Amino acid sequence: MRLQAESPHLVLASASASRRALLEHAGLRFSAHAAAVDEATAKQAARASGASAAGVALLLAEMKARRIARGESDALVIGCDQMLVCGEQWFDKPSDQAEARAHLCALRGRTHELVTAVLCLRGGQRIWHHVARPRLTMRDFGDAFLDAYLEAEGEAVTTTVGAYRLEGLGVHLFDAVEGEYAAILGLPLLPLLGFLRQHGVLL
Amino acid sequence: MRLQAESPHLVLASASASRRALLEHAGLRFSAHAAAVDEATAKQAARASGASAAGVALLLAEMKARRIARGESDALVIGCDQMLVCGEQWFDKPSDQAEARAHLCALRGRTHELVTAVLCLRGGQRIWHHVARPRLTMRDFGDAFLDAYLEAEGEAVTTTVGAYRLEGLGVHLFDAVEGEYAAILGLPLLPLLGFLRQHGVLL
Repeated sequence: MRLQAESPHLVLASASASRRALLEHAGLRFSAHAAAVDEATAKQAARASGASAAGVALLLAEMKARRIARGESDALVIGCDQMLVCGEQWFDKPSDQAEARAHLCALRGRTHELVTAVLCLRGGQRIWHHVARPRLTMRDFGDAFLDAYLEAEGEAVTTTVGAYRLEGLGVHLFDAVEGEYAAILGLPLLPLLGFLRQHGVLL
Repeated sequence: MRLQAESPHLVLASASASRRALLEHAGLRFSAHAAAVDEATAKQAARASGASAAGVALLLAEMKARRIARGESDALVIGCDQMLVCGEQWFDKPSDQAEARAHLCALRGRTHELVTAVLCLRGGQRIWHHVARPRLTMRDFGDAFLDAYLEAEGEAVTTTVGAYRLEGLGVHLFDAVEGEYAAILGLPLLPLLGFLRQHGVLL
């Protein structure tokens, strides 16, 4: 597509199928690589030192981008991370159905934020970053709904933070959703495209 | 899926692939039928009589739902319509690339609304309706971008009002997007699901 310059090559430092799909649907040429970083340890250490959720999301986005950038010195590497924050509590992906149920019980009837960081590295330098904070309000659903939802979703509930995929059955959990849809899926796309235009990568 | 009651049967009075996909991704069982109504004439007549964009969108949604409801007396029929409004101007789907270019030139650098109506009929009665008004701001893109965009989209620009698919290359047109993503695609999904729960169709 003539909308995108020949160089630099874009690399997405993420294995997430939904992030990849967002860039694909926007017609971008890029490659994607999973970045193996120890998220849990980094998150714990950062929280213990008093970091904000946005600070931690940016830190993890940068860790992933730097891991991938080692083999891609000329590329523009895009790192992303997302934290679910409800009140004072941060949520990780549930490890099983029981934990998914506990997370959904903690979130129902309340508003949470998906603190979503995206960051670009080039030549080893952080050249841009953005943090979006979409807000989602879960309805006060009953236990019969919760049982049916968990049964219908099965193991899929362990693949996402908050135990929901808004693009699937997860939409039944919500009363209100505010913020960029792409950011909710894990990648603030409009701000990223804006930066790529400024940087001469896109028309 | 146990989230949905056995009856009534849901019928979507629309041929739109994106509306159908929204309901499918939410796991609903339904059938979909295109409703042939003379939208252009109805729109013109309604505008001439001083109707608002929301009034016209509801009227068209009801016309489509009623057309389909004739053969579906026990069903709950869902009608939808969307109007693009920018200032005082209402936009229809462009008929060709030249008109698509003219529409995009009229919309660039400005905010428009997608006045999006959804309505339910049962037993010949309107039992619920909702109008969403997502707001989208096009960036002040240059002609080189516009040429590349129109070339990349080809005939697809004539399939949607505003000459864009936000879920595709259309995202490159925008600086800001506010409102429910599903409503932008043509069907306010969260309000519809809320009504279907109240009506006992969903858990």
